[in-house]
Amino acid sequence: MISVGIVGGTGYTGVELLRLLVAHPEVTLRVITSRKEAGTAVADMFPNLRRVCSLSFTEPDAEALATCDVVFFATPNGTAMNMVPALLAAGTRVIDLAADFRLRDPAAWEQWYGMPHACPELLGEAVYGLPEMHREAIAPARLVANPGCYPTAVLLGFLPLLERGLVAPESLIADAKSGASGAGRKQELGLLLTEASENVRAYAVGGHRHLPEIRQGLETVCGGTVGLSFVPHLMPMIRGIHATLYARLAAPEAELQEVFESRYRGEPFVDVLPPGAHPETRSVRGANLCRLAWHRPQGADVVVVLSVIDNLVKGAAGQAVQNMNIMFGVDEKAGLEHIALLP
Amino acid sequence: MISVGIVGGTGYTGVELLRLLVAHPEVTLRVITSRKEAGTAVADMFPNLRRVCSLSFTEPDAEALATCDVVFFATPNGTAMNMVPALLAAGTRVIDLAADFRLRDPAAWEQWYGMPHACPELLGEAVYGLPEMHREAIAPARLVANPGCYPTAVLLGFLPLLERGLVAPESLIADAKSGASGAGRKQELGLLLTEASENVRAYAVGGHRHLPEIRQGLETVCGGTVGLSFVPHLMPMIRGIHATLYARLAAPEAELQEVFESRYRGEPFVDVLPPGAHPETRSVRGANLCRLAWHRPQGADVVVVLSVIDNLVKGAAGQAVQNMNIMFGVDEKAGLEHIALLP
Amino acid sequence: MISVGIVGGTGYTGVELLRLLVAHPEVTLRVITSRKEAGTAVADMFPNLRRVCSLSFTEPDAEALATCDVVFFATPNGTAMNMVPALLAAGTRVIDLAADFRLRDPAAWEQWYGMPHACPELLGEAVYGLPEMHREAIAPARLVANPGCYPTAVLLGFLPLLERGLVAPESLIADAKSGASGAGRKQELGLLLTEASENVRAYAVGGHRHLPEIRQGLETVCGGTVGLSFVPHLMPMIRGIHATLYARLAAPEAELQEVFESRYRGEPFVDVLPPGAHPETRSVRGANLCRLAWHRPQGADVVVVLSVIDNLVKGAAGQAVQNMNIMFGVDEKAGLEHIALLP
Amino acid sequence: MISVGIVGGTGYTGVELLRLLVAHPEVTLRVITSRKEAGTAVADMFPNLRRVCSLSFTEPDAEALATCDVVFFATPNGTAMNMVPALLAAGTRVIDLAADFRLRDPAAWEQWYGMPHACPELLGEAVYGLPEMHREAIAPARLVANPGCYPTAVLLGFLPLLERGLVAPESLIADAKSGASGAGRKQELGLLLTEASENVRAYAVGGHRHLPEIRQGLETVCGGTVGLSFVPHLMPMIRGIHATLYARLAAPEAELQEVFESRYRGEPFVDVLPPGAHPETRSVRGANLCRLAWHRPQGADVVVVLSVIDNLVKGAAGQAVQNMNIMFGVDEKAGLEHIALLP
Repeated sequence: MISVGIVGGTGYTGVELLRLLVAHPEVTLRVITSRKEAGTAVADMFPNLRRVCSLSFTEPDAEALATCDVVFFATPNGTAMNMVPALLAAGTRVIDLAADFRLRDPAAWEQWYGMPHACPELLGEAVYGLPEMHREAIAPARLVANPGCYPTAVLLGFLPLLERGLVAPESLIADAKSGASGAGRKQELGLLLTEASENVRAYAVGGHRHLPEIRQGLETVCGGTVGLSFVPHLMPMIRGIHATLYARLAAPEAELQEVFESRYRGEPFVDVLPPGAHPETRSVRGANLCRLAWHRPQGADVVVVLSVIDNLVKGAAGQAVQNMNIMFGVDEKAGLEHIALLP
Repeated sequence: MISVGIVGGTGYTGVELLRLLVAHPEVTLRVITSRKEAGTAVADMFPNLRRVCSLSFTEPDAEALATCDVVFFATPNGTAMNMVPALLAAGTRVIDLAADFRLRDPAAWEQWYGMPHACPELLGEAVYGLPEMHREAIAPARLVANPGCYPTAVLLGFLPLLERGLVAPESLIADAKSGASGAGRKQELGLLLTEASENVRAYAVGGHRHLPEIRQGLETVCGGTVGLSFVPHLMPMIRGIHATLYARLAAPEAELQEVFESRYRGEPFVDVLPPGAHPETRSVRGANLCRLAWHRPQGADVVVVLSVIDNLVKGAAGQAVQNMNIMFGVDEKAGLEHIALLP
Repeated sequence: MISVGIVGGTGYTGVELLRLLVAHPEVTLRVITSRKEAGTAVADMFPNLRRVCSLSFTEPDAEALATCDVVFFATPNGTAMNMVPALLAAGTRVIDLAADFRLRDPAAWEQWYGMPHACPELLGEAVYGLPEMHREAIAPARLVANPGCYPTAVLLGFLPLLERGLVAPESLIADAKSGASGAGRKQELGLLLTEASENVRAYAVGGHRHLPEIRQGLETVCGGTVGLSFVPHLMPMIRGIHATLYARLAAPEAELQEVFESRYRGEPFVDVLPPGAHPETRSVRGANLCRLAWHRPQGADVVVVLSVIDNLVKGAAGQAVQNMNIMFGVDEKAGLEHIALLP
Repeated sequence: MISVGIVGGTGYTGVELLRLLVAHPEVTLRVITSRKEAGTAVADMFPNLRRVCSLSFTEPDAEALATCDVVFFATPNGTAMNMVPALLAAGTRVIDLAADFRLRDPAAWEQWYGMPHACPELLGEAVYGLPEMHREAIAPARLVANPGCYPTAVLLGFLPLLERGLVAPESLIADAKSGASGAGRKQELGLLLTEASENVRAYAVGGHRHLPEIRQGLETVCGGTVGLSFVPHLMPMIRGIHATLYARLAAPEAELQEVFESRYRGEPFVDVLPPGAHPETRSVRGANLCRLAWHRPQGADVVVVLSVIDNLVKGAAGQAVQNMNIMFGVDEKAGLEHIALLP
C-alpha cells in the first residue's frame, strides 16, 4: 500500500483527490493538512465524503508528511515550493497539482506568477506529469509537476500533429471553454451562480498563466518556436473543458485519423473518436479521460481538433493519481476506472 | 401605425417578435398565422404573453396578409420563398427571418439547403438586412433577408478590420458559442435539459449553413475571396452568442480602438467596449445590441475580436424590427430600447 | 417628474431598480449612493446599463438625498433606520426595500434581526407596501416598507382564502423555492455556480427572517393567530420564486376560482390562471407580476395554491416602483409594463 | 457470477443500470434488448460507455433472456407485464424498474395507468423492492417491483415516524422537487433546456401516478388510512430529488433524532444527518444513498423531514442493483460504493 498525504485539499482539486484516493485499492490515506481548517472533519466541508472519509484536516506538520510515501500538494500557487525541498530530502516523493514546478525557466515563473521561485534548483529535476508525453521520466521521478487543466486538453490535441510536423507551428490557435470549477472554490463575485450561469465570457485574453505552460509543452514537442493564440472562456457549467484547436496543415495529404489513432494506441486515458465526431464534455464527466476528434472543414488547409476532458479529473486530480500509479509501479488504471456520469 | 402580420411564429423567433411588437409604439399587430396551431391563443402557447396579446393563430390566408404593410416570416427555411412573390405583388413588404433570401446565388442555396429555390429572380432584389452594412438599401426595400444569428455576431466583429484591409482575409477563424435557443423550439433529444446542460460540444464542424452566409458577407466587405474557418458550439444556456474571432494582422501598426469606435460611432445598437474588455453575453440578454472588444494578445500579429449578441434579439427578432423601423421611416430605436436583464 | 434618489444600489435589487427607473417615463434619477463604491460608474459595475445610465455612485449625502421627492433604500438590513428620520423631517418620502420597517413590533425586529431598532416610533407610521392589501394607505404614506420576496408570493396566494375564512388558519404550510438572486450579490461559497447549480437544498428551516413578516401579514388578514410552517429552498437558477401553499379547507363547498378571480379583478399585477393550471416562474421573469393557480387534489380537503413571482421585480424593485407610482399619483403601471423574457 | 439481461435500456434508467452493472464485480452482462435500437452499439447512444461496454442492442428474444439469472426491465410502463410470466416460468428472476408490479390492486393499476393488467395473479407475489422495508421478502423473491423515485424519497422520510405512530397519519404533505432526468429521455417540448432551465413549476398537482404508490407504502407501514397531499415539481437540473415532508406531531415529546438514527442504524444506503442539517441533492449525485434530516421549526407541532436521493440511483438503477445483490446473496454494497460527484 502507498501511504499518502495531502497538503491543502480544501479546494475542488482537493475534494476530487479525496474521492479518487479513498476508493483507490493501493492507497492508505494518512494525513490531510490545512492551516485554516485544522480540526474540521473533511466530511463536514465536503458532504459527499460523509461515511467514506473519517479524516480531519490537521495543521501542516513536516514530520507527519515526511512519513508518507508521497505527498500531493493541492495548494495555491507558490506554497509547494517552500515545503518540497525538505520533503524530498526526507525521501518523500511529491506530486504538485499547482504550478510551482511546471515552468522550467525560473524567470518565466517570476514573470507569470509574480514572485521569485523558492527552489529554482529543482526546476530541472521536476518532471512535467503528462504521462502521454513523459511516462518514462515520471516513473522514477521524485518530483512531478502535474499539468494544468487547459494545458492537458490542448497538448493532447496538438501532440500527434506537431510531433510529425504536420502543421505549421506558427499558426496555432487554442480556443478553450471551461466550467467554473476550473476557477476554484473561491469567494469571487464573478463565480456566483447569479453572475456565471446563463452567461459566456472570455477572460485573460491578453495573457493567461497557462499560456507559457502550453507553449513550453508544444515547443518541447516540435523542437522549435511556436506561435500560439490561447483564449480561455468561462462556461455556465460546473465541470469540463472543451478545447477547439486550429492549425494550418503543412502536410494536407496526411492520414490524420491514422496519425491520432497510432499515437494514442494503448493509452488507457485517451480516446480517439471516429472521423467526423463531436466529443461532448459530459461524456468524460467524472472520468480520467481525454476524448479527441479532428476535422478538416470544407477540405481547406485548416485542421480543427476537438479535445474534451473533465478539468478536475484528467485535468487535475485524476492525472495526479495516474502519475502516482506510474511512480509506484502499480497498474496505471488503478482507482481510475470511473465511468462518466451521464446524464 | 404600421400594420403587421406574422407567418409562423410558434418558435422562439416568433415569441420574441411578439414580445417586441406588442410593445412597439408604431405597430398594430394584425394577424399571426400557423397552419398547425390555428385556433390556439398565442398566450396559451407562450405564457409570458397572457394579458398583453389577445391574438390567436389563424390559418395562413394570403388575402389577410396582403392587407398588412409588412409581413414577417418566422417560418422554417424554404417556406417564405413560396409565399413572398404574391405578397410583393400585392404591395406588401416582407422581412424574412429564415434563410430563403440570404444567399444571392441560387446554386449555393440549393447546395446548402437541399432544395431548388422557388423564386431565384428575387434573390437579386432582396436586401441583406444588416443595418450597419446596408442601411441605405434597407430603407426602400420591398424584401429584406434578416441575417442569421451567427452571421450577425461574426460580421459585426470582422467588418471594421476587413473594410480597411487591416487583416489578412485568408486567415479568418470564427469560433462561436451559442445558447440552445439558437437551435429553435424543436423536439430533439440533444436539446433536452438533461442532454444539453452541464455540457459543451461543437457541432457541424464540417460545414454549417451559416458558413456560406458569413463568407458572402465578408467577401462583400473586402471585395475578394476570404479563407474562413467557422466552428459553432452549443452552450448550456438559453440565450446568447459569443463569437471569438481570430485574424492575422496585415497592418500591425493600426490604431484598432479608433478603427472600431469610428466605424460604429452613431450606431444605436453596436457598443464598442474599452480596450482590454471582455464582453459578456448576459450584458445583452433581451437587448437589441452587439457589444464588441478587441485584443492583441502578447503583442503578436493576431487580433482577437470578442463579439456578443442575444441570438433572439440582435440575432433575429430585434434586428428584424430594426429593419422594419428603417423601412418605414420611424425612429430606428422605436420599440427596441429594452435594457438587458441582469442578473 | 418625480426626482428619485437611491441609497445602496450595488446589489441585485439596486441594479433592478435602475433598470426600471432609467426607463420610467415619470422619473428623473438624481443620485445613487454607495460608501464603498463612491466614484465608480454604475455601468462599470452593471454592464447592462452601459449607454443608458451615466450616473456614478457617490458618498451618501443627506442634503443631496433630501432634495429628492423620494428615496429608495436598497441597503442591508439595519441601514435605513438610521437615515430615514432625517429624510422624513426634510420632507422626502422613503421606500425601504430592506426589512427595517416591515415588522410593527420592535421586539420582533430585535429578535429576528439581532439589533435594537433605531427609530421604533416610526414603525406605527410605516405602511407595509403590498398594494393588493394596503393601496389606500400607501398613497399618502411618507414611509413605505417594501415587502420581502417570499412574503409577497405567500401573502398573495393565501389572501383570498384567509380573508373569507375559507381555510383553517392553524393549518398553513408555505413551501417556497427561490432562485439564487434572492440571496443577494454576496461573496458566499454556497452561492457559487459550482455549489448552487445542479443542486436543491432547503435552508433556515428552523426559522427564516421572512417567517414573522409573513405571519404578521396573514394575521392582519384573518384577524387572529395563524399556525404557519415556512420552508424556503434554494433553486439552481437566477430569478424566480415558486411558492407552493397548503391549507385545510374550512369551507370545502366554496367556489375557489371565483374567490380568486373576484379578489384580484382589476389588479394590474396579479394574474389568476384558469383552473388546473401550473404557473411557471419563467412566465414572470423580468415582469412585475404574480401568477396564481389553485388545486384541490383528489377532491380532498386540502387546497394547494401555486404562486410565482420574479423575486427581483414583484418581489422587490418592481413592487417598490409600483408603490412609488401609487404614492405620487401617477399611473400605477407606469414603467412596469415589461413583458417577461421567454425563453 | 450473476448473468444479467436488460430489456429496454435506451432511457436514463437504462444507461445508469449499465454504468453500475458494467463495473459490478459479481455480474456478467449478457444481453440488452431494444426493438427500436436493435443493432445500435450501446456506446454509440451513450458516449460515456465507449471502451467499457461493447454490447449492442438486440431484438427482444425470450429464449436469450431466459438463460439469464435475472432480467431487469427498464421499459415504459405496461411492457414488463407482458413478458414476465414466461420468464418466471423459465426460472429467470425479474426486477422491474417500471410501475407494472408496484400497486397490489389491479383496479388501482388500471385507474392510474389506463390499461388492464396483463397478469394480475402476479401482483400478490411481487415484492415491493424498498430494502429498508422489505429486505427479507426481497431475498427469495422471483419478482421485485423496484420503487419509483418519488416514493423512495418520501417513504424513507416518513417511515420512522409512521412506524412508531409519532405523527398524525391524516396530516401528511410531501412537497417534492425533481431534476429533469426523472421525466426520462423523451422528446417533449417542456423538457428542452430552453423551456426547463431557469424555471420552476409544479406538475400533475391533481394526481401523479406516484401518489397511489406512496399511499400504499405509507398505509402498509401504519396499518391504516393516510391523508396525503403530494405535489411534484420540476427543477432546472439534471439529477436529484429533494422531498420536503410535513406532518403534525402526535407525540411531540419524542426524541426524533434517536428515532431516525435507530431506525436506519446499519442501513448501508440511508444516512441520517445531525440535528438541524439541510441535506443537499448534490451530496448524493451518482451515489446510491438517501440522506435525511428532520426539523421542528419554532418548536411547533409540525415536523419537517428533508430527504434527498439521486433519482436515477437510489431512486431507480442503484436500488435495482441493491435488490439484485439481496436476491443473489452477494454483499448488498457490491458495485454500489460510488462516492457522489461533487462539485
